[in-house]
Formats: sequence, C-alpha cells, structure tokens
Amino acid sequence: MKERFTNFIHSLQDQICAELEAIDGKATFKEDQWDRPEGGGGKTRVIANGNVFEKGGVNTSVVFGPLPEALKGKVQQEDAGFFACGISLVIHPKNPMVPTVHANYRYFELYDSNGDKLDAWFGGGSDLTPYYLFDEDAKHFHKMVKDACDSIDTEYYPKYKKACDEYFYNSHRGEARGIGGIFYDYLRPDESHSEEELLKLAQANGQAFLDAYLPIVNKRKDLVYTEEQRYFQEIRRGRYVEFNLIHDRGTHFGLKSNGRTESILMSLPNIVRWDYDFQVQEGSEEARLIEVLKNAQDWV
Amino acid sequence: MKERFTNFIHSLQDQICAELEAIDGKATFKEDQWDRPEGGGGKTRVIANGNVFEKGGVNTSVVFGPLPEALKGKVQQEDAGFFACGISLVIHPKNPMVPTVHANYRYFELYDSNGDKLDAWFGGGSDLTPYYLFDEDAKHFHKMVKDACDSIDTEYYPKYKKACDEYFYNSHRGEARGIGGIFYDYLRPDESHSEEELLKLAQANGQAFLDAYLPIVNKRKDLVYTEEQRYFQEIRRGRYVEFNLIHDRGTHFGLKSNGRTESILMSLPNIVRWDYDFQVQEGSEEARLIEVLKNAQDWV
Repeated sequence: MKERFTNFIHSLQDQICAELEAIDGKATFKEDQWDRPEGGGGKTRVIANGNVFEKGGVNTSVVFGPLPEALKGKVQQEDAGFFACGISLVIHPKNPMVPTVHANYRYFELYDSNGDKLDAWFGGGSDLTPYYLFDEDAKHFHKMVKDACDSIDTEYYPKYKKACDEYFYNSHRGEARGIGGIFYDYLRPDESHSEEELLKLAQANGQAFLDAYLPIVNKRKDLVYTEEQRYFQEIRRGRYVEFNLIHDRGTHFGLKSNGRTESILMSLPNIVRWDYDFQVQEGSEEARLIEVLKNAQDWV
Repeated sequence: MKERFTNFIHSLQDQICAELEAIDGKATFKEDQWDRPEGGGGKTRVIANGNVFEKGGVNTSVVFGPLPEALKGKVQQEDAGFFACGISLVIHPKNPMVPTVHANYRYFELYDSNGDKLDAWFGGGSDLTPYYLFDEDAKHFHKMVKDACDSIDTEYYPKYKKACDEYFYNSHRGEARGIGGIFYDYLRPDESHSEEELLKLAQANGQAFLDAYLPIVNKRKDLVYTEEQRYFQEIRRGRYVEFNLIHDRGTHFGLKSNGRTESILMSLPNIVRWDYDFQVQEGSEEARLIEVLKNAQDWV
C-alpha cells in the first residue's frame, strides 16, 4: 500500500499540474525537491503570477523514520516509527469570480520498535472557497465529490461533508472557511471496506477533483470584475489565512514538528488584506456569501 | 489598584492617540466602545490610511466576571472570578523605513468563590519591528525602555529583554519577530517591590514608549523608498501575521475565550504578502535585517 499510494500521489501531482498549466496558458509550475533529515522528502511545485492562477502549490511528500515528538501523544510505545505520504494542494486564482480550492489525500502507517505495523489509516478531502458565490458551481463541486464517494459507499458523502463543514470553520468568526466539500481522517480498513477500497476512495476523489474544479475555472476565469470585488477577495483571503494559521491542525503539526516551512505555508495567498471591522452592504452578493458561510447548506 | 491601573491605561490611551494623530496630520482615531456580555468591556481605537500610519490600534479593556474556561487550567477552585485591565497597541506605518511597534500593559486579579483576592499580577512590554534596520533607532528604543526599567530595578531590563527575545520568536523560521524590547508577565509584588512600584514600572514604560517610538517616526517618515522596499515590507508583515496567529498566547487566548475578534485582530497589518520561498540578496540591507533577527543583539 505504501508503494501504491506513493505512485498514486505522484501521478496525480503530474496530472493536476499539467491540467492547471494548460488552463493558465502563461505560468508553469516550478519544482523544489527537498529532503527531510530524519527520512524521506518531497516535491513542492508552485505556480505564481499566471494569467489565471495568482499563486498555487501542488505538493507531495513521502516521509518516514522515528515518530516525531509532536505525534507521540497517540502512541505509548518508545522508539515507534512511522511512514506518511500525501498530496496537498491549494490554488488561489486571480479573478475573484473563481474560487480558491484545497485538496489533500494521504496515507499513514505506524510501527512498533521492531518495525511491525501497529496501525494504518487514510485521510483526505477537498473543499471550495468562493469569493462570489455561484450556486451552480457549489452544486457542481459537491455533486462531483459525492459521485466519487458514492462509488465506494453512499454513507461516505453525508458523513464527510458534515466533517468538512465542522473542520474548516473559523470559530472566532462563526463562519466556515468556504462552502465545504468532504474531509475524512483516521479511515481504517474494516469488515465492510478493504484497504483496496480506501485507496480507491482517494483515487476516485483525486480524479473527481479535476472534474469538480476545472469546469468552474473555465466558466469564471474571464468574467469581468471591479476593484471593489478584488478588494473583497483580498479581505476574504485574510479569513483563509486566519483558518490556516489559527485552526488548521495540519499546519500546526507541520510547523511544530520541524516540517519544511515554505512547503507548508505555500497554502497562503500572495496578497492579503485586513481592515478593522470590515462590513458588507446589506442585500449585497458579499452579504449573501457570508450568510451561506454562517449556515452550512446542502448542495446536492 | 484596579482603579488606579484603569485610570493609568485610559489616560495613556488618550495621550498616545493624541500624539500619533499629531504626527500623522491626516487620519484620526475612530473609537468603538464594546461591552463584554459576561462583564466589562473596552474601547477600541483604530487609525487607518493616514499620511504616516497605514493601520494602527490603541485599545483598552476592563473586563471581569467568572473565570473563563480557557484560564481555568491555572485555578483549582470552582466559581473563581477575575478582573483584568490593560492597554494594547500595534502601529503599522506606511513607509517601510519606519518600524512597526507593539506595546501592552496589563493588570490581573483572581478571586475565590467568596470574592476574596487569591492572586494578582502585572504584565507588559514593548517591542520594535523594523523593515529596514537603523542601528541608532534600535539603540535609542532599547535605551528608553532600559531607562524606564532601571528607574525601578536595574535587574529588570536584562531579564525582560531576554524574555522578549524568547517570546516574540517565529520558531518555524528560526528568527525573531523584530529587534525586541522588553516583555514581562506574572510579576507579583514581593519583599523587594511593592504593588506601588509595579504600577510605576508600567507607568514609566508607558511614558517611555512615546519617547522611544515617536522620535524614530519623525526621523524616518519622510525618507524616500522604492517599490522593492515596499514589497519587502509587505513580505515581512506576513511574518508578523504568522507570529500573531501561530504563536501569540494572547491572541489564541482571546480568540478561544470569546474575546472581541475585531479588537484582537486589529494587530494585523492591512496589506500583506506571501511569496513562496522569498529570498533576499546576499549582502543587502534586507539580508542584514534577517541576520540580526536570527541572532538577538545587545543594543545598550
């Protein structure tokens, strides 16, 4: 499974980067390969200042070795080891009519001091963060994600859609980061689903990501927008930064376990704005977005 | 002491706002008074888009009531109560030659269920975050702060200068937020210093803040700067945001104990930039700044 999941994330990384470059038509991904002193490494690919994409990263990492202190809480055993591989991406488009998107698929194994496998699990998901809300885009995104989940188990989508709404939540503002998608973690094979099927769940969602996001980009990337709409996008990007730096467990774990800071923080947008007590006009599109973020919707 | 400290922070707030407005010559502070449902409230004063100051806040709060859950860790007692008052300010100038500054002075009391005082302490400090480093400014700032501390106890400055370097530190980047100042917390009256003297320490530092910062602003606010220097300032502001959202205990405590989000996050600069793997040129002024941030200096 380690090898198969690693192959999956590398081929998905290639495919996603190629398709995003094709849409952008100007910028290309630059790759940084990095090594982790304690074992393993990664490939960080970043696109910037494109026609369509202002900043984005599509990263893979395959890391292993002694279990970092920051993870020890979960394991009693001394000298435990781990293996983790995953793909993580965040894309910030220039045009405020095109939503930001995030996706992540990962596989984790834990070993005792003899190197015997103690535990293994899958995690992943994708979610959309619009600045201007087109209901049909939200429905399309959720429909694609739901179809991918349903191909394994129809119980997955409702369960992991809810988990996504709960996880990507700026509690200090009482609003979601975006309009959601799915989020799953600590998913272990059991009598109803083999590890084979959990790999397929990640693969189906990885493919669905492209079918979910790219049509939205194509539909919205050439829409005209005003300076005020761009301003609102920069303000909302601030909320994105707030979630990632204040609440995101993955970011905190990465930064506190000596992860590669630039690869972790590639998720932050390039230009961001904070005004004191920014307010939206009643009845505006901006107000409608915030209303939706305060009250999670059923999109399919 | 509650009353005297409260009077001190309100009069310092008035004085600082008046002096900053006088330097700016264009923008004025707008005040929001807010009430805390559980007891007390505050006065948030924000300046924006001035000639000199791009964004800044000078806030006071006087809050009390049942001890919030987030603070309970420290106290065994059920039905404990608390009183806290403080002034907190962050000023982000427009010109990258003018440093950002932060200061905070606060007083805390803790009560048992009968309302009897269990404990009381003082906290505070101020620190400077330059984008372009003028050594004479760093020396001047530290000298003013040291003089204020020395007026109470010559052991304070070295001790709290070190605490400041350690606290305002972006461990995920191996660099300090700025060139420091002082930071003290849980300072209780004892045989060598009465509560009277600890109030005086805050008052002396509050006055010193103006003498420390305003001359630097006056000296640098009209210096010419390039677009590249402004760009670097926006990148460095990103590091400021990282510290405040990832590491600052006060911010986390405020956001997780149902504090007023807009008053807490007024500390964030208005325009901020994150580039993937931003690098400075060897031998440049930007490189010199980062070198200093990686190695705390003795300025006086």
